[in-house]
Amino acid sequence: MGERLGEFERIDRYFKPLAARWPGALGLADDAALLDVPAHRRLVVTTDTMVESVHYLEGTPADAVARKLLRVNLSDLAAMGAEAKAYTLSLALPRTLDTDWLAAFAEGLAADQERYGIGLIGGDSVSTPGPPIVTATLFGEVDRGRALLRGGGREGDTVWVSGRPGEAVIGLEVARGELPGLAAEHRAALKARYDLPEPRLALGQGLVGIASAALDVSDGLVADLGHLCRASRLGAIVEAARLPRSPALAAALEAAPELEATAIAAGDDYELVFTAPPSAAEAVRQAGETAGVPVTAIGCLVAGEGVQVRGADGRPLDGVGGWTHF
Amino acid sequence: MGERLGEFERIDRYFKPLAARWPGALGLADDAALLDVPAHRRLVVTTDTMVESVHYLEGTPADAVARKLLRVNLSDLAAMGAEAKAYTLSLALPRTLDTDWLAAFAEGLAADQERYGIGLIGGDSVSTPGPPIVTATLFGEVDRGRALLRGGGREGDTVWVSGRPGEAVIGLEVARGELPGLAAEHRAALKARYDLPEPRLALGQGLVGIASAALDVSDGLVADLGHLCRASRLGAIVEAARLPRSPALAAALEAAPELEATAIAAGDDYELVFTAPPSAAEAVRQAGETAGVPVTAIGCLVAGEGVQVRGADGRPLDGVGGWTHF
Repeated sequence: MGERLGEFERIDRYFKPLAARWPGALGLADDAALLDVPAHRRLVVTTDTMVESVHYLEGTPADAVARKLLRVNLSDLAAMGAEAKAYTLSLALPRTLDTDWLAAFAEGLAADQERYGIGLIGGDSVSTPGPPIVTATLFGEVDRGRALLRGGGREGDTVWVSGRPGEAVIGLEVARGELPGLAAEHRAALKARYDLPEPRLALGQGLVGIASAALDVSDGLVADLGHLCRASRLGAIVEAARLPRSPALAAALEAAPELEATAIAAGDDYELVFTAPPSAAEAVRQAGETAGVPVTAIGCLVAGEGVQVRGADGRPLDGVGGWTHF
Repeated sequence: MGERLGEFERIDRYFKPLAARWPGALGLADDAALLDVPAHRRLVVTTDTMVESVHYLEGTPADAVARKLLRVNLSDLAAMGAEAKAYTLSLALPRTLDTDWLAAFAEGLAADQERYGIGLIGGDSVSTPGPPIVTATLFGEVDRGRALLRGGGREGDTVWVSGRPGEAVIGLEVARGELPGLAAEHRAALKARYDLPEPRLALGQGLVGIASAALDVSDGLVADLGHLCRASRLGAIVEAARLPRSPALAAALEAAPELEATAIAAGDDYELVFTAPPSAAEAVRQAGETAGVPVTAIGCLVAGEGVQVRGADGRPLDGVGGWTHF
């Protein structure tokens, strides 16, 4: 921990309470934290940074910033099939942010600590003349040799997604004032998906031993499936008509059909995209049901490279990113 | 990992080579990294962030920024008695930084990876309109129940320091153009101590089982010893005349005696300050000799609270920080 006097008070008031559940945090008062990993488990480590106006809109409430920061990282743990345990924070904040902001930020952390059963174990806090930049490093556990990796896909495996990718990017459009004619309930549902992703931890853990490969959708379905394909040395075919749509997403794309390519190509959905042999389809559906998350088969892995999204006529769709290079 | 296309190239070119030695890094290509911790060990985690113009001077060469970032974190591991293993990075960099900067930054990382036997296992990289902000999270290991904590000091324990605290803050004065009359060799020696700390990893590991409490000097000797005292619920008396001085430090304080209080109170030395029972004095000296680091007894822990620095006349020195509240 950096340790100017102002920072001590900050730590005491807002962050020490968040470290109470984890003895290895040493009350955030020592040089480092201690973490135990059971002998049959491996530690899973991921880190993500968010910059105001780049990764979240200026004016986003501080508690939502905190929760989004934890959740984008938790989503990476979910994609590995890991159980979330603990985290460290690094905050670079302008001096103009007042204690209300910090209090709300800590409340957001507390809410999601509770929700996901994790504890703060350490961190650093500095001031910056630039925009707020927040970093979290998340720690999870997975049984040895059981982590879901990107490179395990086999030719003929089915490609699945959780939830309804595309909602978040359309939600961002809504947040920016686009789609003004859309029903208020749909606008709210889509915007909520952009503001606060739902990491699919239970689903990821349920897919251990079933899925052949997995990752989370942070760059858009096509781009991220492209990563899985590259790591597995295969290509993928996705049928656009099979992409799942909520009523809100369907209404938005009906109102603005020109956003369809955006919904497929872009996105901050933090859903899982994963592959499994066709024989595992029932097990996948069960895992989705147990986790309470819809799962949808959208295509398959094929020899070759790149991701091809096919329209209802079987021909490749245009404008869904730079990944359709068959 | 955040994953815009520009970032991919960055990662491929500069960071993947740094992850080659660590299989659990998964080539920096998966959602997270995997880390094994042997059953009899605990993981030690620490994170530190540096902001340009706050934690290092604008214009500092990128390789020196990288090395300082690793070393301030390694110093925290040293203070726990831990063995360094791996690290993650989070970089928020202005778009104006060119690839030369990145190449030099990666070279600095590579040099200290080699020096300290650590490997990069993950990270994130984002752009910022503000100044460069770099964060590292370091992972080390220590035998269960053997970590050096701050709160283990006992009344009557001897207070020790490694190296010569005060050199770094005087080195900063030199870097700012002060002390122009000092011999060039002394100026260079002091400035080097500010630019690039030397984490005392071997000493920290050597003190496991010998020292009763330890921490690293990042806020200044008096302030940091104050933390140890608070955690141990004791006070400390330090005799100013016993504080070790290199020829360069002695020459600087002779040229500018008004800096003496600064040298004692402030500092970015990343030396260890630690306590041990008087009966362990010979073992402490042996540990210092084995590690090749000078160690000096400078005082002792007493009932009460706060740190009192006494001059040659036995009276408290003025102006050595807010910690002399006997």
